[in-house]
Amino acid sequence: MADFHLCPKFENAFELLGKRWTGLIIRVLLSGPKRFKDISDMIPSMSDRMLSERFKELEAAGILIRHVYPETPVRIEYELTEKGKGLEPVMDELQKWAETW
Amino acid sequence: MADFHLCPKFENAFELLGKRWTGLIIRVLLSGPKRFKDISDMIPSMSDRMLSERFKELEAAGILIRHVYPETPVRIEYELTEKGKGLEPVMDELQKWAETW
Repeated sequence: MADFHLCPKFENAFELLGKRWTGLIIRVLLSGPKRFKDISDMIPSMSDRMLSERFKELEAAGILIRHVYPETPVRIEYELTEKGKGLEPVMDELQKWAETW
Repeated sequence: MADFHLCPKFENAFELLGKRWTGLIIRVLLSGPKRFKDISDMIPSMSDRMLSERFKELEAAGILIRHVYPETPVRIEYELTEKGKGLEPVMDELQKWAETW
């Protein structure tokens, strides 16, 4: 039963990704860094408050980073980390499954 | 943004799989049909009450079926449907991701 030792990581991953909007935000960011407004425009039924909350959770989980560019006006972009980008095959497989069933 | 039409299915899948123990129960069943006790023995920290609840949810979602064999004593086994077995690549990719990060 050696593989069962991995279950907390495995479950934590599902718990994180299982939250409403999280999977979709990650999918949008897989196409490259985005500004807050880009994402909120792409997912119109999600509130800005929810998006802020999800960004904080994903940043805390090391899945995305927030870049602040000191321009005028200041530009802020959200980008997946390597850990975040590593979710692409999971997303692809889940998408295939969801489309099939 | 055609792929965004798929988001409800995609999110529903994550929401289902994100529940505590669900991913682990599916992984155990990927190795073949099991009795209730087989699974509860393999996941000792999960209560039997929780396992019953998860079985009901997974059956309702069409992910597993319950076989009742009219023997003495009656034998009951839980088996993944084709839909449930289709989750194997998702589980594999998530496992790889969780192990790496």
